[in-house]
Amino acid sequence: MAKTTGLPESLLNLIEYFKKFPGIGQKTAQRLAFFVLKSPAAYVKDLSEALTRVKQVVRFCKLCNNLSDEELCAICKDSGRDRGIICVVEEPTDVIAVEKTGKFPGVYHVLLGALSPLDGIGPDELKIKELLARVKEKKPKEVIIATNPDTEGETTALYLAKVLKPFNIRTTRIGFGMPIGAELEYVDQATLLKAMDSRRELA
Amino acid sequence: MAKTTGLPESLLNLIEYFKKFPGIGQKTAQRLAFFVLKSPAAYVKDLSEALTRVKQVVRFCKLCNNLSDEELCAICKDSGRDRGIICVVEEPTDVIAVEKTGKFPGVYHVLLGALSPLDGIGPDELKIKELLARVKEKKPKEVIIATNPDTEGETTALYLAKVLKPFNIRTTRIGFGMPIGAELEYVDQATLLKAMDSRRELA
Repeated sequence: MAKTTGLPESLLNLIEYFKKFPGIGQKTAQRLAFFVLKSPAAYVKDLSEALTRVKQVVRFCKLCNNLSDEELCAICKDSGRDRGIICVVEEPTDVIAVEKTGKFPGVYHVLLGALSPLDGIGPDELKIKELLARVKEKKPKEVIIATNPDTEGETTALYLAKVLKPFNIRTTRIGFGMPIGAELEYVDQATLLKAMDSRRELA
Repeated sequence: MAKTTGLPESLLNLIEYFKKFPGIGQKTAQRLAFFVLKSPAAYVKDLSEALTRVKQVVRFCKLCNNLSDEELCAICKDSGRDRGIICVVEEPTDVIAVEKTGKFPGVYHVLLGALSPLDGIGPDELKIKELLARVKEKKPKEVIIATNPDTEGETTALYLAKVLKPFNIRTTRIGFGMPIGAELEYVDQATLLKAMDSRRELA
């Protein structure tokens, strides 16, 4: 008796594809594949088309490098956004995070990475030239540097501060410290140290 | 300023499709969609084809109702399997579970459900007629009833025992009791009760 999985080849094939997704193991992949099997054919056809469509149409916004279906992304096209404030982030996913606050009135510039000399990522590998050209042409009133609070993000922030200095515009870094709702007892030391450094006068 | 998601339409569309999968929320759907975006076009094309292919080719085995790409499933076609032992299960996923033990030499019969009068699922909604026809024709030496140990599964097992009785073949029910590795202290009362009922002589 040969040990089998008891599953048809085409289903095993689909399970293998799902297993390549991040965070999807054998059990979840199997569950997803069974869901596909039980779904209406129309849904599966639409999903299949949505998959290939994403690869075909999504590109980087010509101006800010955010993800877009067209030359300019929805935010760059929005005439209601304040082009005088540019928020610099590492990745398109960071744009989503800032947009979720619903409070940022400006536009973005996505670097598509952060400086990491050890990985061979220098200023030329990022969209820094493009940022400088944009700043030079549009003369924004403020550039907010919202790279991550890790080594690469901090290095990138310091580098940007340096190259933006000659333009004489307000360049700011997002605040770091205790996350809202956290407790001193449980927060890591690096965050607490940052919070102490970032203390402000009360009243 | 309109609040946006900062994502192109085609990507949002794909995220919505992923969110329909069981156990996939907004964050995971987003992560999966970004993975698709970063994957090689060839992988996405293959995945997209695997999806539609599953819907096109997978059907129920003509003999046992297990999932199959062809008329007969891999297990029913395997000449090395003992056709004299039929294991009756509720769903194709149960076949996978039993196959994983690697120790079952027989073949299966998938009922495609369990009796549940309250949900309007009676014997005619399940593949019971087909099981009886198979038993009548093939005269197996044993039918193992491996429906789940819940109300529906137990009801189904009792019903099957009754309708199989006239054939005068050995009809068994899988054993219930303490799962291996569990501790008495933590196991639920229903399981412990079953374990006590299923006690056997030592030596």
